Amino acid sequence: MELNVIILAGGHSTRFWPLEEKNLFEFFGTPLFVYQIKRYSLFLKRNHINPHFIVVSNETNFEQIKRHLKNYDLAKVQVVNQALPNQSGAVSAGISKIQKNSPLLIANSNDIFSETLINDLLKRIKDKQIILTASQVKSYFPGGYLVKDKSGFVREIIEKPDQASVPSKYNLFRFVLDFFPNREMLEKVLDNKTQNLGYEDAINQLLPQNKAIIVLNDQPFTSLKYPWHVLSATKIFLDTIKDSTVKTQELDTTSQIVGKVFIASGVKIGSFTKIVGPCYIGKNTIIADHCLIRDSHIGQNCLIGASSEVARSYLGNNVMLHRNYIGDSVISNDVSFGANAVTANWRFDEQSVKSVVNNEKIDSLLYKFGSIVGEQAKIGVATSIMPGIKVNKKSLIAPNTTIYKDLV
Amino acid sequence: MELNVIILAGGHSTRFWPLEEKNLFEFFGTPLFVYQIKRYSLFLKRNHINPHFIVVSNETNFEQIKRHLKNYDLAKVQVVNQALPNQSGAVSAGISKIQKNSPLLIANSNDIFSETLINDLLKRIKDKQIILTASQVKSYFPGGYLVKDKSGFVREIIEKPDQASVPSKYNLFRFVLDFFPNREMLEKVLDNKTQNLGYEDAINQLLPQNKAIIVLNDQPFTSLKYPWHVLSATKIFLDTIKDSTVKTQELDTTSQIVGKVFIASGVKIGSFTKIVGPCYIGKNTIIADHCLIRDSHIGQNCLIGASSEVARSYLGNNVMLHRNYIGDSVISNDVSFGANAVTANWRFDEQSVKSVVNNEKIDSLLYKFGSIVGEQAKIGVATSIMPGIKVNKKSLIAPNTTIYKDLV
Amino acid sequence: MELNVIILAGGHSTRFWPLEEKNLFEFFGTPLFVYQIKRYSLFLKRNHINPHFIVVSNETNFEQIKRHLKNYDLAKVQVVNQALPNQSGAVSAGISKIQKNSPLLIANSNDIFSETLINDLLKRIKDKQIILTASQVKSYFPGGYLVKDKSGFVREIIEKPDQASVPSKYNLFRFVLDFFPNREMLEKVLDNKTQNLGYEDAINQLLPQNKAIIVLNDQPFTSLKYPWHVLSATKIFLDTIKDSTVKTQELDTTSQIVGKVFIASGVKIGSFTKIVGPCYIGKNTIIADHCLIRDSHIGQNCLIGASSEVARSYLGNNVMLHRNYIGDSVISNDVSFGANAVTANWRFDEQSVKSVVNNEKIDSLLYKFGSIVGEQAKIGVATSIMPGIKVNKKSLIAPNTTIYKDLV
Repeated sequence: MELNVIILAGGHSTRFWPLEEKNLFEFFGTPLFVYQIKRYSLFLKRNHINPHFIVVSNETNFEQIKRHLKNYDLAKVQVVNQALPNQSGAVSAGISKIQKNSPLLIANSNDIFSETLINDLLKRIKDKQIILTASQVKSYFPGGYLVKDKSGFVREIIEKPDQASVPSKYNLFRFVLDFFPNREMLEKVLDNKTQNLGYEDAINQLLPQNKAIIVLNDQPFTSLKYPWHVLSATKIFLDTIKDSTVKTQELDTTSQIVGKVFIASGVKIGSFTKIVGPCYIGKNTIIADHCLIRDSHIGQNCLIGASSEVARSYLGNNVMLHRNYIGDSVISNDVSFGANAVTANWRFDEQSVKSVVNNEKIDSLLYKFGSIVGEQAKIGVATSIMPGIKVNKKSLIAPNTTIYKDLV
Repeated sequence: MELNVIILAGGHSTRFWPLEEKNLFEFFGTPLFVYQIKRYSLFLKRNHINPHFIVVSNETNFEQIKRHLKNYDLAKVQVVNQALPNQSGAVSAGISKIQKNSPLLIANSNDIFSETLINDLLKRIKDKQIILTASQVKSYFPGGYLVKDKSGFVREIIEKPDQASVPSKYNLFRFVLDFFPNREMLEKVLDNKTQNLGYEDAINQLLPQNKAIIVLNDQPFTSLKYPWHVLSATKIFLDTIKDSTVKTQELDTTSQIVGKVFIASGVKIGSFTKIVGPCYIGKNTIIADHCLIRDSHIGQNCLIGASSEVARSYLGNNVMLHRNYIGDSVISNDVSFGANAVTANWRFDEQSVKSVVNNEKIDSLLYKFGSIVGEQAKIGVATSIMPGIKVNKKSLIAPNTTIYKDLV
Repeated sequence: MELNVIILAGGHSTRFWPLEEKNLFEFFGTPLFVYQIKRYSLFLKRNHINPHFIVVSNETNFEQIKRHLKNYDLAKVQVVNQALPNQSGAVSAGISKIQKNSPLLIANSNDIFSETLINDLLKRIKDKQIILTASQVKSYFPGGYLVKDKSGFVREIIEKPDQASVPSKYNLFRFVLDFFPNREMLEKVLDNKTQNLGYEDAINQLLPQNKAIIVLNDQPFTSLKYPWHVLSATKIFLDTIKDSTVKTQELDTTSQIVGKVFIASGVKIGSFTKIVGPCYIGKNTIIADHCLIRDSHIGQNCLIGASSEVARSYLGNNVMLHRNYIGDSVISNDVSFGANAVTANWRFDEQSVKSVVNNEKIDSLLYKFGSIVGEQAKIGVATSIMPGIKVNKKSLIAPNTTIYKDLV
């Protein structure tokens, strides 16, 4: 069986600031959209399905996506810029590249969920019905929700209902992981005249005439919109580590490795240091003496200086720490922390941490949440960053200061 | 032999701020007055003496004392509120509850001394003389002092002489641990007409007609008046630990336990952590990785986070630390310290540390003295508290601040 | 063979502030000028040369030098005050103490170089020619430079050329380690009439009639002028440690000693502590738990408190640390650091660190450079000292401050 897989990677990342383009965000050393292609490829081939991938890009990331595909030996994957800056335009652009009448899967590059959902979906595609996927959620998340009819088929997608009406009625939060048995049915409702209506409106037009089944996800999932979503995404990635893999010999005899940890080649681990899994440690990273690393992703070529503690955090590449506490935080590539700088990660009033995005105070719904630090920022010695604070790339923070507001 | 034991627990704790009621202050998981009852009970029974305990309370702590007695299975102990707010009134109230003509021991709940003194006193009670107890002191302490006559009997008690005259003449600092061979002699001088004179005046009236011997204490002792007295009291309590007792299996193999340490059940001790006795670690407390704990009392359900150091300090229950230095300090129940907050514990001029009590600067006579932190206070990350500073309960201290004055 | 060795120790140390007299600065527990005498003595005797030492002092250090010579059993060494405050006067004073016609070696007390240079020089002294020594340098250093003639002999010494002209032409930086086959040739050009010309001018007068060969040093060297030169000097001293020598039994079983380390008698090393050579640890110093010491000189009677890190630094005697990071810094005798105080040791702009000396901003040419702290200074808890900052002796620094300027 042939299957067209459209990876939507053309959405903008304005709410992701100070982090860069979310579709290119690296986990386990791989840009997210590449990771998605590889993952779908793996599962489809395991199910004897032959995939044709189409990545929908935007004008900003088109070149980078092409370059990455080449680097990752995926030159056969097609890339197409989306014509209009909405999801309808993105899907139209993707569809324009596929052969008539063959089935298709539409997936968001930045939706991160367990492999169980993909497997469950693949079991149903031979039924030749529309498949939509969703999770039952307890807390609000700005997105689409599914409404079922009495027989259990989808009656309607409701986009971004106001927060008060979720979860009482619309508690099936929808992923963009949609299967259509053929291209034509979708093309008809997405034609020039209706494009303004949006992708979900188009599906809603299909629903009266076509049965659409729901495949439910009961595992943790994350859709990268706000930068703190990297924290829950990191957790999902780390939970895919099923064994301990240590590709280096340079562990001091006194160091401890506990639980499921991936340690890449070239890594050095110092004396009296403890790594508690799940953890990912990228190539050539040095973790010095007296460190404690737990539940964290650390990229390559980092220097985690002596007496540092990293907990439940994401660190990119070339990060330099020294005697820091990094808790529940996202630290981008090439960031340095001076000695004794810390990320405060909970509020004295024990409320969830809020963060300002586009001048609006957003509740992260996280009770433990440190900082988001952009690329190449340098944090002075003995500086404290308050919970939920975001630091722009290339910021220079003076020593011994306390950061109460986002540094834009 | 029958013996009435009056435990005076009705004194006020105003000078004990920001700590709460001193008679209920917990050591080793037990309120102080309960500890005193248990200790006297143990020694008396060992000497074939049958004790009847009477606790003298005040209006504020009466209910709590009753409740504690019930919880500790000491419901037979009598409790009586003192009629007048002085020691004479306290003793009168205690005496009112005992049988005619039987001997009695009067003890302060908040005087803490070695068991040697109790043993030495018990050896002399069959002599049927008044027994008063004292320590030879080198530095001034606001209390009563004994004057001997030529034969070595007590001639007079002098209350709170001014500091200049101690220790030259009056260097026998008196504990309130007094034995009287019968109730009547004391009752006479404490009758309604003389109650205003005070308890020591009453004893002074007895001294010309009755020989009163002195039993001397040559061990460390403390009378809890100021909150920093908890530090010396803690030392006395810790010195009663005669062996190492470890009631948990959850010690990391790399952890070190040195000297005499009591570790309760449910305690967890992390990697590369060192506990140097004498130390007491209460139930279910977690001491994480890379910690150093020495000469300290840590209550139950504490979370001593990674890379913390606690030296010569008292911590109550539910205390949360993380990368802190707590030295020569008293930390009450439910207090949290943010990462890298420290207690400074000595002066650059190497003078003894002063502390303000009731608007008066008091010399603690301690050369190493950190902070006194009241219940439920939360200390921000990277905050420094200067020597001798007292922090009120429920204080919230901003991050990266330096506390130079008491927070009231 | 007899050889007069003149050790020039009369130069002033004004640019060495906040450090004291550079000729008396201690490495490995020995004042620098004593170390030089002992080292030359060792090499000369090994080469069957009998040395007569003359130390040229100034009015300020004359008595101290006499006292040290007595303490170190070097009472036979002559000491003479230099008459004039320049090098010519210093050499004249030295020469005045030696016998006619015997050869002489003139050496600066504060030039620190590898033993290879001394050995190479000694191989050439039987040639009976003037010998001058130099290193090829890539960066400017304020001193004298040698110019060769076509045959490779010295044509001229150029004193302190401006920085622009080095290293293109004058890249042979000259040490003051000069050999003259007899006293008379030098005496003639240094007579009363020419003394004003300076020592290098005198040599320049000799060069046309006398061949002067160059012995080249290709090892690291340092001339102590600015206080940060102690850092490179320390490195040279540490590199002379050829084996690990541990003269104490009091190492915790969990401590690690890696590389070439000299540990004196009476030293105590705590748990989970790592010493990475080359390191020198002086007598009776305590290095507590969870410490990391590398590439550093630590004097005697220091208390390196728990969780301290010392890297590439010089510490004198009686230094007290506690939870500090001391990197690329010089810490004088009797200095105390409060908990969590740190020395920042690199600039965010990744430029070399500058430091102000006599109101002039000097480029240290160091990319990692912490602080220089004078004797008996006390640094408050949580204080940060910026790169290149110098702290006067006896300074008291408030807690939780950031030091951006020299404390004079």
